[in-house]
Amino acid sequence: KQIILLPGDGVGTEIMESAKLVLNAVASEFGHSFALHQHAIGGDAIDQYGTPLPNETIKACQQADAILLGAVGGPKWDSLPANLRPEKGLLGIRKSLGLFANLRPVKGFTSLLHASPLKESVIKGSDILIIRELTGGLYFGKPSERRENGNAVVDTLYYQRSEMERIIDKAFQSAQIRRKHLTSVDKANVLESSRMWREIVNEKSKDYPDVTVEHLLVDAAAMKLVTQPNQFDVMVTENLFGDILSDEASVLTGSLGMLPSASIRSDGVGLYEPVHGSAPDIAGLGIANPLGMILSVAMMLRHTFHLEEEATEIEQAVHETLRQGYYTPDLHIKGGKQVSTKEMTAIVVENMT
Amino acid sequence: KQIILLPGDGVGTEIMESAKLVLNAVASEFGHSFALHQHAIGGDAIDQYGTPLPNETIKACQQADAILLGAVGGPKWDSLPANLRPEKGLLGIRKSLGLFANLRPVKGFTSLLHASPLKESVIKGSDILIIRELTGGLYFGKPSERRENGNAVVDTLYYQRSEMERIIDKAFQSAQIRRKHLTSVDKANVLESSRMWREIVNEKSKDYPDVTVEHLLVDAAAMKLVTQPNQFDVMVTENLFGDILSDEASVLTGSLGMLPSASIRSDGVGLYEPVHGSAPDIAGLGIANPLGMILSVAMMLRHTFHLEEEATEIEQAVHETLRQGYYTPDLHIKGGKQVSTKEMTAIVVENMT
Ligand SMILES: CC(C)[C@H](C(=O)O)[C@@H](O)C(=O)O
Ligand SMILES: CC(C)[C@H](C(=O)O)[C@@H](O)C(=O)O
Repeated sequence: KQIILLPGDGVGTEIMESAKLVLNAVASEFGHSFALHQHAIGGDAIDQYGTPLPNETIKACQQADAILLGAVGGPKWDSLPANLRPEKGLLGIRKSLGLFANLRPVKGFTSLLHASPLKESVIKGSDILIIRELTGGLYFGKPSERRENGNAVVDTLYYQRSEMERIIDKAFQSAQIRRKHLTSVDKANVLESSRMWREIVNEKSKDYPDVTVEHLLVDAAAMKLVTQPNQFDVMVTENLFGDILSDEASVLTGSLGMLPSASIRSDGVGLYEPVHGSAPDIAGLGIANPLGMILSVAMMLRHTFHLEEEATEIEQAVHETLRQGYYTPDLHIKGGKQVSTKEMTAIVVENMT
Repeated sequence: KQIILLPGDGVGTEIMESAKLVLNAVASEFGHSFALHQHAIGGDAIDQYGTPLPNETIKACQQADAILLGAVGGPKWDSLPANLRPEKGLLGIRKSLGLFANLRPVKGFTSLLHASPLKESVIKGSDILIIRELTGGLYFGKPSERRENGNAVVDTLYYQRSEMERIIDKAFQSAQIRRKHLTSVDKANVLESSRMWREIVNEKSKDYPDVTVEHLLVDAAAMKLVTQPNQFDVMVTENLFGDILSDEASVLTGSLGMLPSASIRSDGVGLYEPVHGSAPDIAGLGIANPLGMILSVAMMLRHTFHLEEEATEIEQAVHETLRQGYYTPDLHIKGGKQVSTKEMTAIVVENMT
């Protein structure tokens, strides 16, 4: 089991230590052996090698079963030209490995819901899986360039039918093992690509008769996420819509620091990372919330290695830790105890056995 | 003062009656004369003329100073081919009249904030003006077509520099007469069009030294609208981002039925419409909230006819009506009184004098 660790920037390096400790605990408890190799990405790679995605990192990732990523980016690299920015490292990995399916679960933890910007009556019971297409659309379409002597500009939203089909299949399959409701989000009243998307969803729905399908325009979806988040089960959409809606959804529960994500392809190879970013404001202070990273490790064990029992044990240990009242400074639990990144990690590991 | 009325579909026809009554009241109180001409658009026009935007309607609009629109669309026309759908009428009017600046104010009414999905502490004090570019980008870029025998599809995000410049100027000018803070939203870490947008905002900011500018990525903006809506003053963005974010923002205050909008061009010609749609579920029942439409009339008087006093009088009458506790069934005011569309309109008119 070859796992590449890409700590990246900011709090990325701190929470990657938590991931290692949790993986070690799983390995010794269940008798697995994980080969961990660390490589550079993002600003860290720019500083060391002058590029956000060194060839050596790509090569290592191409041979791996799974990749754990901390976070990339920070003000230090913000004024570099676009092709030298830390984010390019992330986009490059996604594309070169073909990680087309981004899974973003959003689920509130009861003891943390008080921190939600939404009223408890609105957010309560929400449990959404957003599935975002990750390697097509406006992110990679050509041409993307200045025109007419710099007096115009063009970007291109391009999709192949097969790219739409595979992500829509993935979404139906995910809905089948959840509550069997799929919301497909598009802008079919304006975009030709959305009309093709909607056609494919309708065709595919015949192959999954147990799943109920609902079509929602992206503007209506942005509204409904705020007004009725608990009406969603699985949501599927193209790359840019997914970027916007999954980030909107990530703040609804009030515990962004706890959300994991997976970016996978059909053979199970995947990249796993917490949803929060590099958080330069608290980097180096040892207070970052490691739970988003730890829950990403659980997603990796489930989706890439099919170690369901191990994944569940980590998730239960995280829940237990919150029930016991431990929290990092980004959260707050009444009557609980504030702890550091290291302390939180140690308690989760403790709760695993 | 030539005003075209386009009631359109669903509750559109009911609230247009409210607009007429309010305009009559303004006319007689201030001694103005408004020439009102009614025309067909959307599903209504499809039923009557077989097209969502008859030539006769376009011609009338081209000669008008201002247009009041009710709403377009409904399930009856949902299965028609894309070019025959009610929305095409709206897109066609915007484009053919060059109404490039969409102004969407979002402001909570104190007596209605309890209906917000957000906690009162989060939504309190929010007063945002979203300015959306309305005639460029993915909505109108060519090619927008199937490719490779239907195995691929492309849409095009195209902007001319001048299209970006004029909306960005409009936004700076709007910020100058508000709280002097401008948030420019883009996806500059991915899109070339966003990088050009950001350059222009930075150049233009030198011409408006009294305005503070902040750049926000569209995904971060979608988060911040939910977590810190009261941190925004004016927000400006391109067409599709503006579609998504302005709709997301419209549900934050809990009173969607009260929000007006304006779509204008540099010479002041504009189209004014409430933000809510045709609401087919309550159409014909006489209970639609007329306040979004009535406040759109106020925006028209201000932006097209520069009748500031008249606009303010309408807005104050609306506030007074809510203070008196009157509400339509989409709202609720504790200890207040539920009324019909007609009753609500009559009370607003009463409160105007
Ligand atoms: C860093 C950026 C390019 C990236 C994206 O837009 O995909 C990020 O926002 C994300 O969602 O992972
Ligand atoms: C009806 C539709 C084409 C339109 C848009 O996307 O512009 C609507 O959502 C709006 O915001 O006015």
